[in-house]
Amino acid sequence: MSYCLSIKLDSGIVFASDSRTNAGVDQISSYSKMHVFDAFNDRLFVLLSVGNLGTTQAVLNFLVRDLENPQAERSLRKVDYMFDAAQYVGDLSCQVQERHGSAMQQGKVNLEASFILGGQIEGKPHETFLIYPEGNYISSSPTQPYLQSGETKYGKPILDRIVAPDTSLEDAARCALVSLDSTMRSNLSVGPPVELCIYLKDSLEISQYVSLDIESPFYQSLQASWKDGLKKAFDELPRFEWE
Amino acid sequence: MSYCLSIKLDSGIVFASDSRTNAGVDQISSYSKMHVFDAFNDRLFVLLSVGNLGTTQAVLNFLVRDLENPQAERSLRKVDYMFDAAQYVGDLSCQVQERHGSAMQQGKVNLEASFILGGQIEGKPHETFLIYPEGNYISSSPTQPYLQSGETKYGKPILDRIVAPDTSLEDAARCALVSLDSTMRSNLSVGPPVELCIYLKDSLEISQYVSLDIESPFYQSLQASWKDGLKKAFDELPRFEWE
Repeated sequence: MSYCLSIKLDSGIVFASDSRTNAGVDQISSYSKMHVFDAFNDRLFVLLSVGNLGTTQAVLNFLVRDLENPQAERSLRKVDYMFDAAQYVGDLSCQVQERHGSAMQQGKVNLEASFILGGQIEGKPHETFLIYPEGNYISSSPTQPYLQSGETKYGKPILDRIVAPDTSLEDAARCALVSLDSTMRSNLSVGPPVELCIYLKDSLEISQYVSLDIESPFYQSLQASWKDGLKKAFDELPRFEWE
Repeated sequence: MSYCLSIKLDSGIVFASDSRTNAGVDQISSYSKMHVFDAFNDRLFVLLSVGNLGTTQAVLNFLVRDLENPQAERSLRKVDYMFDAAQYVGDLSCQVQERHGSAMQQGKVNLEASFILGGQIEGKPHETFLIYPEGNYISSSPTQPYLQSGETKYGKPILDRIVAPDTSLEDAARCALVSLDSTMRSNLSVGPPVELCIYLKDSLEISQYVSLDIESPFYQSLQASWKDGLKKAFDELPRFEWE
């Protein structure tokens, strides 16, 4: 498992992801799941990947191959809408899973992968999409600004309490970090480093990117501050009438 | 789904459960999932139930029937150890599931049920057990004082941060309520009223029991206090270096 999320705000988009990949408890590695496509003048995409590493790497390879081939029928450069890009990623993912489908059934390996795709094409709104293993997708909405993939449940309550469309990019980024930190504490399949990237709408470039290891001073101070704050909030809860 | 939990502390046990039962979104009811067996001088049991309502009700009926029959081979009155009681509940649960097993396969209904059983037999330690649908069970431990069943993930981070064996009964009870509240906010299958019960070790009787509806003044003030405290903790998180 893994945990990735996007938060679409009025002012832009926040992306965050963990980096743990595991096939059983004895094959644990660290791979980036955040992929930025920013070598364009008129568009920008960020893709977060969750699931079978073979599938997600193949999808990324095909995305790059199609970008390098001017004759390719489809590519991130040629899509006209963000949802076109989501459909394209979903189709590539299905192709990869089908190619290895019969071997998968024999070996009982799960080839499924999910993606979160966000970004903007010039003149069009900034958007985020959650792309399912079946290749279909959903977008965020004002009532559901965030999209999650992977181990989503541990980190959901804090998002539900804090995030709204008018939340600032930095507050949403902090909330994403807390959501990831809570998940990492409660689930071993989600692990550092944590990658965080902020997109300011209409800029068509990444405004901030950080990769935070648990030992990094900022992450440490965030963890300590949140722990203290929670403890304080907890200590201030009302007493029962019999206390 | 549902959400129930127990927290075993040095000083006793806290039990908490939601009350929502649903078979699809159009069959939502409210049933208590907390069952106290305290009509003894030398023992006390609290049973929390999660899963198929037919199965959990049948198990409860059989527990009561066996208690009323002095000739019954097994009953909560006759078990010598807490783990005997856990095994007995697990066996009853398996019997009920087997009885309706063939019909289940036809109708694709899931008859599975889980239980959390806690309490004490005079002269023996107070204990808690999580009983799986297969009838086997695990107990809590000093490094894992709490046991959860049902929709466990949303409410796990706060337990991981707050609960330790030397936590006070009232603090653990507040933590259980926050854990349930976070789950109810994030998952529709978990709903009020919330039942909470506190057992002080060696007392062999329930020391406190409350059933809290969302509108109750205590629950409202707990919710408001937690919301404010979280907001404050969040607002005090460190700024990014570029802010």
